[in-house]
Amino acid sequence: MNSPCIAVDAMGGDYGPEVVVPGAIAAARSKNISLVLVGKEKEIASIVAQEGAEDLDIQIHPAEEVVGMDEKPSEVLRKKKNSSIQEAFVLARKGQVDGVVSAGNSGATLACGMFTVGRIKGIERPALASILPTEKNPVILIDVGANVDCKPIHLLQFGLMAEIFAKHVLDITRPRIGLLTIGEEEGKGNSLVKQTFELFKASPSNFVGNVEGRDIFKGNVDVIVCDGFVGNVCLKLMEGLALSLTNLLKKEVKKSFLAQLGFLIARRALKSFGKKIDYAEYGGAPLLGLKKIALVCHGASNSKAIKNAILMAASFIENKANFHLEDGLAKYEELVSFCKTTETSQPKSA
Amino acid sequence: MNSPCIAVDAMGGDYGPEVVVPGAIAAARSKNISLVLVGKEKEIASIVAQEGAEDLDIQIHPAEEVVGMDEKPSEVLRKKKNSSIQEAFVLARKGQVDGVVSAGNSGATLACGMFTVGRIKGIERPALASILPTEKNPVILIDVGANVDCKPIHLLQFGLMAEIFAKHVLDITRPRIGLLTIGEEEGKGNSLVKQTFELFKASPSNFVGNVEGRDIFKGNVDVIVCDGFVGNVCLKLMEGLALSLTNLLKKEVKKSFLAQLGFLIARRALKSFGKKIDYAEYGGAPLLGLKKIALVCHGASNSKAIKNAILMAASFIENKANFHLEDGLAKYEELVSFCKTTETSQPKSA
Repeated sequence: MNSPCIAVDAMGGDYGPEVVVPGAIAAARSKNISLVLVGKEKEIASIVAQEGAEDLDIQIHPAEEVVGMDEKPSEVLRKKKNSSIQEAFVLARKGQVDGVVSAGNSGATLACGMFTVGRIKGIERPALASILPTEKNPVILIDVGANVDCKPIHLLQFGLMAEIFAKHVLDITRPRIGLLTIGEEEGKGNSLVKQTFELFKASPSNFVGNVEGRDIFKGNVDVIVCDGFVGNVCLKLMEGLALSLTNLLKKEVKKSFLAQLGFLIARRALKSFGKKIDYAEYGGAPLLGLKKIALVCHGASNSKAIKNAILMAASFIENKANFHLEDGLAKYEELVSFCKTTETSQPKSA
Repeated sequence: MNSPCIAVDAMGGDYGPEVVVPGAIAAARSKNISLVLVGKEKEIASIVAQEGAEDLDIQIHPAEEVVGMDEKPSEVLRKKKNSSIQEAFVLARKGQVDGVVSAGNSGATLACGMFTVGRIKGIERPALASILPTEKNPVILIDVGANVDCKPIHLLQFGLMAEIFAKHVLDITRPRIGLLTIGEEEGKGNSLVKQTFELFKASPSNFVGNVEGRDIFKGNVDVIVCDGFVGNVCLKLMEGLALSLTNLLKKEVKKSFLAQLGFLIARRALKSFGKKIDYAEYGGAPLLGLKKIALVCHGASNSKAIKNAILMAASFIENKANFHLEDGLAKYEELVSFCKTTETSQPKSA
C-alpha cells in the first residue's frame, strides 16, 4: 500500500495557516505520509519555506476562498465554490487524496463533504464522532454536532457506524454501545431516546443500554450515542468545565506561597495529568458516513492538535476504515430498512 | 414573621434517615427553624434520640411508605398514597409547613407536588433549577430534569421563573438570561431552541442570547435555560467529569513521591478549591412553579448537603420566593398567552 495521502484545509481554524501548516509539517516529519495543503498558495509556501520543509512530500493546491467559522453551510455551498475546504473534498472525490483534515467550520465541512464526495450507501446523516479520554480506554461520543434534530433511525445509524469504526480502527472486538440519557433503567429519557432504545435492542449490536452523563468518563462502554445537539453541548461543557476548574484551582494556589511550592514540586505529575486530558493529544473528530475519510479539528486547535489529527487520519486510511464502514453497513442494510418502516416519530429535520 | 417551618422527607435519598435526619438536625441547630420529619416514626425517633436533638423544634409526622429512587412517578401517585414525600406535600397543602425538602426520586417529588399542592397559575410545567458555582457568581441552570420533552413556551416559562427567583432570592437586579445551545450566533441550535430564541427576544426580560456549554462556568449570565433532558445530562456530566478528573489526578499523584509531597504542602488550597466546587455546599435544587417551596437534593446527598438544602429552603421562605413568583408571573400573563397563540411546534409531551 502507498503511504496515505491527505488533503489539509490550510486555511481552517481560528488561526489559519500560521498554525495549520506547521502542524501538517510536523505530521509529515513524524510519519511517511503525503500531504496536499489546500489554500492561499503564497501564504502557505512562505510558511513551508520558513519551516525548511521543502524536502517533505508536501504539495500545495491553490484555493483562494476561505470559509469563516460562523458562515452558514448552505451559503458556503452556494457562494464559496472554490473554498479551501471545498477544494480539499474535490481532490478526495477525484481520488487524488485518501482523506481530508480541516480545523474549519464543522457545519461547512460536513456540507462540502456530503455535496462533493457523498454519503456511504444507506446512511441518511453522516455524524461527527469525538474520541474522548476516560478513566480507562477512550470512548467514542457520536454525534457531537453534525445533526441537531434527529430521528431514532439516525441515532441507530450513528451507533452502528461508531461500532464498526471502533472494531476496525480502535481494535475493540465487540464494542459496547450505550445510549446517552437521564437514567440507567429502560424507559428513561425523552421520546427520541425511548424510541431509539427499542431500535438498538432489536439490533445484533452489543447494546448495553442507557448511559448517564456521569458515566461518560468511567470508560465502561466504547461508544455513546446521542443527537448532535446534546453531544455538542456536552463536548463544549467538558471543555469549559476543565478550563474553569483549572482557573479556579490556579486562583486558589496563587493565594498561598505553600500551595505554589507544593504545585511546583508536583509539576511533573500535573503535566502528565494535563497531557492525559489535553484534547490536542486526540487530534480531530472523524466525520463518519462520508465516502472518504474526513476529520474535523477543534477551531482553536494548536499545531500539535493538527499534527495528531493528520496522523489519526493516516491511521484510519491504513486501517481501511471506510472500506470496513461500507462493508459493515451493507450487512446492517436489512435491519435499517426494517427500522425505517416501523418508524413512528417524525421530528423535524435540521 | 414566624420562623420558617419545613417538612423534610426523612426517607428520601440513597441513604435514607441515617443521613437525612442528622442533616436536618444540623440545620435546626444552626438556624431558628421548625422542622417536621416525615417517614417511619420509630426509625426517625431513634436517630433524633441518638443525636440528642430532643430540645430542638423538630416534630415527626408518620408515613409508612417509602418511594424508591427508580419508581415511576405515575405508579407512585397511584400506589403509594401515604409515602413520606406525598405526606410532606399534604402538610404543605394544609398550611402546616411552608416548604418541602426531599432527597428522593425527583420525578416522584414533582408528581406529588403537582398533584398535592398544585402549580402556580399559568405555569404549564414546574421545572428543576440547579444553582451552580462558576468562576464568578453562581448561575441558575433550568430545567435540570423535570421535563424531558418541551415546547418553546415551557422554556420561556422556565426562564421567567428563574429570572424572578434570581431577582428576589439571589438579589440580582436585572438577571441576564441565556439560552443553552451549540453556537453563539442567533439561529444556532435545534428547532426547539430556535423557536424559543424568538420568544425570549419578544419578552421584556434581559435576554442576552445564546450560551454554549463552555460558557456555563464563566459566570457571565445569571440564568441558563434548557430542556430537562439536556439539563440533566449536563448536570450529571459535570458531576462525572469533576469526579473522573479527581480520580485521574490522584492516580498520577500516587505514582510519584514528589507529587505526593507537593500535594501535601498544597493541601489547604486544594481543600478550599474542593469546597468551592462541592455540590454539598449548594444544597438542593428548587422546584420552581409549584404553589409551595420545594427543594430536591441529589440522591447521594450527605448530611451536609441536606443541612444546606434545608437552610436554602428556609431562606427562600424568608424571602417570600413563592409570593414573588406568583406576583411576577402574573405580570407576564399577557406575554405568555400571546406566545401560546403564536406557537407553531407541537413536540410530544413527557
